[in-house]
Amino acid sequence: MHIGVLGTGDVGQTLGTKLVQLGNEVMMGARDPANPKAIAWARQEGEHASFGNYSDAASFGGLLFNCTLGSASMDALRQAGEDNLDGKILIDTSNPLDYSDDNWTLTVGNTDSLGEQIQRNYPNTRVVKTLNTVNSNVMVDPGKLIEKTDVFVSGNDLEAKAEVVKILRDWFGWKSVIDLGDIRTARAVEAYVLLWRSLRKEINTVRFNIKVVSA
Amino acid sequence: MHIGVLGTGDVGQTLGTKLVQLGNEVMMGARDPANPKAIAWARQEGEHASFGNYSDAASFGGLLFNCTLGSASMDALRQAGEDNLDGKILIDTSNPLDYSDDNWTLTVGNTDSLGEQIQRNYPNTRVVKTLNTVNSNVMVDPGKLIEKTDVFVSGNDLEAKAEVVKILRDWFGWKSVIDLGDIRTARAVEAYVLLWRSLRKEINTVRFNIKVVSA
Repeated sequence: MHIGVLGTGDVGQTLGTKLVQLGNEVMMGARDPANPKAIAWARQEGEHASFGNYSDAASFGGLLFNCTLGSASMDALRQAGEDNLDGKILIDTSNPLDYSDDNWTLTVGNTDSLGEQIQRNYPNTRVVKTLNTVNSNVMVDPGKLIEKTDVFVSGNDLEAKAEVVKILRDWFGWKSVIDLGDIRTARAVEAYVLLWRSLRKEINTVRFNIKVVSA
Repeated sequence: MHIGVLGTGDVGQTLGTKLVQLGNEVMMGARDPANPKAIAWARQEGEHASFGNYSDAASFGGLLFNCTLGSASMDALRQAGEDNLDGKILIDTSNPLDYSDDNWTLTVGNTDSLGEQIQRNYPNTRVVKTLNTVNSNVMVDPGKLIEKTDVFVSGNDLEAKAEVVKILRDWFGWKSVIDLGDIRTARAVEAYVLLWRSLRKEINTVRFNIKVVSA
């Protein structure tokens, strides 16, 4: 499968590598078509990995991952181009965080979310918010945690969510995926990242997640 | 021990009852000193339970629980009176939620929290934010869940937090309490309630909680 990964950070690299390992053709997109991190990544991953600008990667992929910083996501998608996003599933892993202070804050939240902003701006794109609640290592290898934990999906398009649930399960090994509802529930998972941040300071590792336990 | 419980809703009633069962003297406080729910609760719980206005309950208690609606907490504490709060531990279980829409929103968040507002307004009160991440039934009986889950504490006063951790463990049965840090981390647990809300809709019970799982 041809997949476009927007973003060259830890999330883009880790997901990109996993997607190549799974046998896909992956293009990593950046603002700069000659982004050094994207070039190095593509060289390392071999013939099934390539790089380009956001528009190249979005055009290349039949399936897209948004792995840009949340604060840069709207701009990256504008560069990707509406035509290149049209009708495609966009798996949005990003978080709208302002890291400038030690206490992270959200750049959008409460009555809106980045997931909703993306869906609103690209109504023909099938946005599914997921994986933003865990570190990149956990995203592609949840089985490394000592117990089965939960990941969430939010999105308006039921078929797109079903496809993403399959990807999460069959490609990445997520055995429990909770469908929270439509894209407005992105508010909940994006806000959760503030708790993730506080936990991360106490737990001293980024390799953790939560498990929902009922009576 | 003499305990003041501010608020007459599910949380106040459930905590109040548990605290009486544990052998404490509990006064439930309300805006109206003759609040029908407080009167009925005190009658049902017997001689160790009483009721009064916010000021009566705050004056009565050596330990205080804020179980008012988050949107009403600042007003309730103003009525309780600074002198009655001075030097005391205030366990803040409230959430600053606007329930007017089916999508709950926070009335304060991101760069501030209700926990911080309370601490800022009553600098001599030892505010510990906790239990706000679970339903009242789970607060006092976490062992009913099928696995051990986590509860969080946030507060500036280390001794107060240690006392609250003891209360959570010895009185309510919480075996795992995670200290998130100072009262600013109330932002994280208050924001988490948006995820709690989304989960609650999917899980079809209020009797659930999260467990932090690491590698």
